[in-house]
Amino acid sequence: MMELTDMIKDRIKLVNDNIVPSIQADVPALQDAMRHYPVAGGKRLRPVMALVVSAAVGGNDEKTLPYALALEMTHNFTLIHDDLMDHDSLRRGRKAVHVLWGEATAINSGDALFALAFRLLAKVEVGHAVFLEILEDFSRMVQGIAEGQQLDMDFEKMKKVTEEEYLIMVEKKTALMFQYAAKGGALIGGGTRQQVEAMSEYGRLLGIGFQIWDDLLDIEADEEALGKPVGSDIKNGKRTLAAVWALENLDGANKEAFLKAYGNQNATKEDMAGAVEAMQKGGAIAYAKKQALAYAEKSKELLGVLSPSKEKDILLYVVDYMVNRET
Amino acid sequence: MMELTDMIKDRIKLVNDNIVPSIQADVPALQDAMRHYPVAGGKRLRPVMALVVSAAVGGNDEKTLPYALALEMTHNFTLIHDDLMDHDSLRRGRKAVHVLWGEATAINSGDALFALAFRLLAKVEVGHAVFLEILEDFSRMVQGIAEGQQLDMDFEKMKKVTEEEYLIMVEKKTALMFQYAAKGGALIGGGTRQQVEAMSEYGRLLGIGFQIWDDLLDIEADEEALGKPVGSDIKNGKRTLAAVWALENLDGANKEAFLKAYGNQNATKEDMAGAVEAMQKGGAIAYAKKQALAYAEKSKELLGVLSPSKEKDILLYVVDYMVNRET
Repeated sequence: MMELTDMIKDRIKLVNDNIVPSIQADVPALQDAMRHYPVAGGKRLRPVMALVVSAAVGGNDEKTLPYALALEMTHNFTLIHDDLMDHDSLRRGRKAVHVLWGEATAINSGDALFALAFRLLAKVEVGHAVFLEILEDFSRMVQGIAEGQQLDMDFEKMKKVTEEEYLIMVEKKTALMFQYAAKGGALIGGGTRQQVEAMSEYGRLLGIGFQIWDDLLDIEADEEALGKPVGSDIKNGKRTLAAVWALENLDGANKEAFLKAYGNQNATKEDMAGAVEAMQKGGAIAYAKKQALAYAEKSKELLGVLSPSKEKDILLYVVDYMVNRET
Repeated sequence: MMELTDMIKDRIKLVNDNIVPSIQADVPALQDAMRHYPVAGGKRLRPVMALVVSAAVGGNDEKTLPYALALEMTHNFTLIHDDLMDHDSLRRGRKAVHVLWGEATAINSGDALFALAFRLLAKVEVGHAVFLEILEDFSRMVQGIAEGQQLDMDFEKMKKVTEEEYLIMVEKKTALMFQYAAKGGALIGGGTRQQVEAMSEYGRLLGIGFQIWDDLLDIEADEEALGKPVGSDIKNGKRTLAAVWALENLDGANKEAFLKAYGNQNATKEDMAGAVEAMQKGGAIAYAKKQALAYAEKSKELLGVLSPSKEKDILLYVVDYMVNRET
């Protein structure tokens, strides 16, 4: 296991060493805003997934790096815009871009990062047909992320959101990027069509499990370790899987305690603790955990298309890391 | 001349017929917001320029159309975000996207339109090397537009902006898109390298002249014909060429009258009329007009690389249309 984590760390370092120097702009304030989140680190899950999948089907890091960087830039562009849209003021333990530079520069620096991502994409050295597939996928991915964000915002105004609607939103907002991280890695690495499709599905399922788990961290994680406030989803009435399930299935005192804090910006610490306890006792947390782990298990099955390799082992390990983490 | 305007109208119709059906999204509110400006029309200057330049070097409309649509989508994405950043509430005689759908959906629908533009770009059928050049140019173009927008916003907070700084801003914010409209058209049409470079410069110079002229319309145009309020640049203290020149060169009563309205949100109708009169009497308007027309004339000289054709005549005609229009 030690060796696997070292192999992941090497790829995180590769991304870290290259991402910030790749972000150049003629206007200093814009460049600073564009670099603010990428400098702060982050887990680099998406670029690492592209690199490891590529290697697992016979590719190498050098050839896949521009694609990995394009993914990470795009991820960071969506974070800048999402934090502004969602009025989140903290990210990775630092003030959000729109808090530090204002809303206009946040919009603008996100746009510039997104534009820059396509310049990285243009450095991917593959045949023309594969290149066009990657470009189309990338475009679909970002449009899908915007659609997912839109659904997420619309859900806050809807009386009832079904589990099915929640899953469509999560698939778009989060899973698409893992799906195309894995698919793009497989395409650039020269995988067979069967491997490309299986890796695409691996990323999709893992992405859904990851988001369900991520939402659970907002309920149960340690605030300091997470680097951002915990419980804001409950206060904001956000439709997470645990909340959707709780709204449908809690009853009696549990329902009452949950509703006292859910969607209530003025909820006290006690209200919040009561809501979390109700979700635990009533089974909402357990249900969401079970679902997240089920997606994780299904994603592992897809790895059967890969020949044995250290990278295959990493992709197996990554599933447990992403859907069983504490921060 | 009748025949030329008909040829332009045919290409505007080609863009109009194809742009809205090309904008599809799974989430209805997002799709509506994405289509709001494209449906309302606009002059379609950028896509028409790409189509006409392509034909002028031997290409055809069918092959160039996806690129033309990608340009128009990108232009509309920047309008959505710019209107939000600049707090402009009217566009093409209609309420701005952020006014109708809110700020979050405005950010999001702009992002989605931008993503979609790259899907159109992927439909351009050219060789791989040319394709990569087009993609890189497109990425540089959009990042440059963001840099220009950033400079434009920064200028409002600066005590003094020189004419040189103003020109850098205009080149990025406006001229880049005309530059790459013309260059992309020439590349897709199969022009020689000399033609590609000359068309790139033609678009750049014309774009600068266009923006200087466009800023003059905000001072002198008829409000109803323009479809948006006139004079807001003066009230907002925006750095236009006429204003930069006025700040540097007006004196006495003209200077006083200009400063009474410039950057003053509470300026009365009389203050505004006084400022415009001062810019006219003091020579600021005449100076900006002269500069715009000089860029226009220089852009015409670049057309020498083209063999005689109806399309060449259109490109000549377009210069006068863009830099001598009243709306």
